[in-house]
Amino acid sequence: MSGSVRHNFDQALEELQKDILRMGSMVETAIVKAVESLARQDVKMAQEVIDGDEAIDQLEKEIDDRCMKLIATQQPIAGDLRKIGAGLKIIVDLERIADHATDIAKVTLRMANQPLIKPLIDIPKMAKLAQEEVRGVLDAYVRGDVELAKETCKKDDEIDRLYRLVFDELVEIMQKDPSTITQATHLLFVARYLERIGDHATNIGEGVIYLETGEREDLNR
Amino acid sequence: MSGSVRHNFDQALEELQKDILRMGSMVETAIVKAVESLARQDVKMAQEVIDGDEAIDQLEKEIDDRCMKLIATQQPIAGDLRKIGAGLKIIVDLERIADHATDIAKVTLRMANQPLIKPLIDIPKMAKLAQEEVRGVLDAYVRGDVELAKETCKKDDEIDRLYRLVFDELVEIMQKDPSTITQATHLLFVARYLERIGDHATNIGEGVIYLETGEREDLNR
Repeated sequence: MSGSVRHNFDQALEELQKDILRMGSMVETAIVKAVESLARQDVKMAQEVIDGDEAIDQLEKEIDDRCMKLIATQQPIAGDLRKIGAGLKIIVDLERIADHATDIAKVTLRMANQPLIKPLIDIPKMAKLAQEEVRGVLDAYVRGDVELAKETCKKDDEIDRLYRLVFDELVEIMQKDPSTITQATHLLFVARYLERIGDHATNIGEGVIYLETGEREDLNR
Repeated sequence: MSGSVRHNFDQALEELQKDILRMGSMVETAIVKAVESLARQDVKMAQEVIDGDEAIDQLEKEIDDRCMKLIATQQPIAGDLRKIGAGLKIIVDLERIADHATDIAKVTLRMANQPLIKPLIDIPKMAKLAQEEVRGVLDAYVRGDVELAKETCKKDDEIDRLYRLVFDELVEIMQKDPSTITQATHLLFVARYLERIGDHATNIGEGVIYLETGEREDLNR
């Protein structure tokens, strides 16, 4: 590449990373608002999350198109190509995370007319960890920071642990009082969505490690 | 590209598609065996599904590396690049489908010591549709057949419909007899995994449509 082509390419890459971060922060907000809407039984907030999903999907497609165009027109060399390839995968995971936030918001709508049987146990804690994990792995991507990626993905173990706790607790609640079954079932799914969000964030973290070291780690086991 | 380079490239693309089909058929088998292991409470079969997941993950990584190498070394033109890009995404969805088959197999292990409360309602039917959808969209990818992709993704609507039926039925079973709660909860998740498998297959179908027409369709709504 000539100097000015290189410059333009670097600029395009930087724009790309900015947009991935922007998508990431939209996704973080979706997680937080989804669980908050559930805790407060706030139907309006839940609807915002659901409506907002389209903008996230749209941004994913834009970034995706841009990546493919960059590859096609600039024919980047190995390192640059890997960075774009990692970006292509990150946005897929982000989009799936947003879908799960939407799933949670839909549970809020379904439970809107019933008094909450119970505070949400450790569900808000799971959500906070999930949000932090998403932010951490995206920071790690932008900074190329393998240690940060590894450290952040440890949050996923904690999310998994809380998931098992929540699961057992909800089953117990149902067994004690069968009138809670419908609602507890919905909450079981909410916990599972958060657990999946953690897995997707971990996928992103693994992608960062692969990008920087060429090594495939499996942090999800 | 010169004639012989083109020839080599075409061969590499063909190999790639073959491997994607091979991965697809491994994934199909995993779905079928997972649900069969559940119906028969066959722990050995479930364990095979769980152990087999590693080979699928491995194949995904191989294909992924190969795609990136093809892009880097051959610098393919737009149409070829899009085909490789579509392949990159298909294998992610296939890998996630295999993960869900593994999730189902793990439920088999967890329920191994309890007599089944009930035949599995429409779960086997959901599994059959999901398997057919996976096969159909991969056929559509290899043939570049947009109509087949669209037609196949209609199965996902039927899977969604069955999911809602199964969900309601399981909640009813739990309410009638709280001793069934743990098991019914596990089956709820199995139904949800199958529903997600349908979504992933639909993602693949959408990818085929985008590859062939340049149009983004959202068949998941």
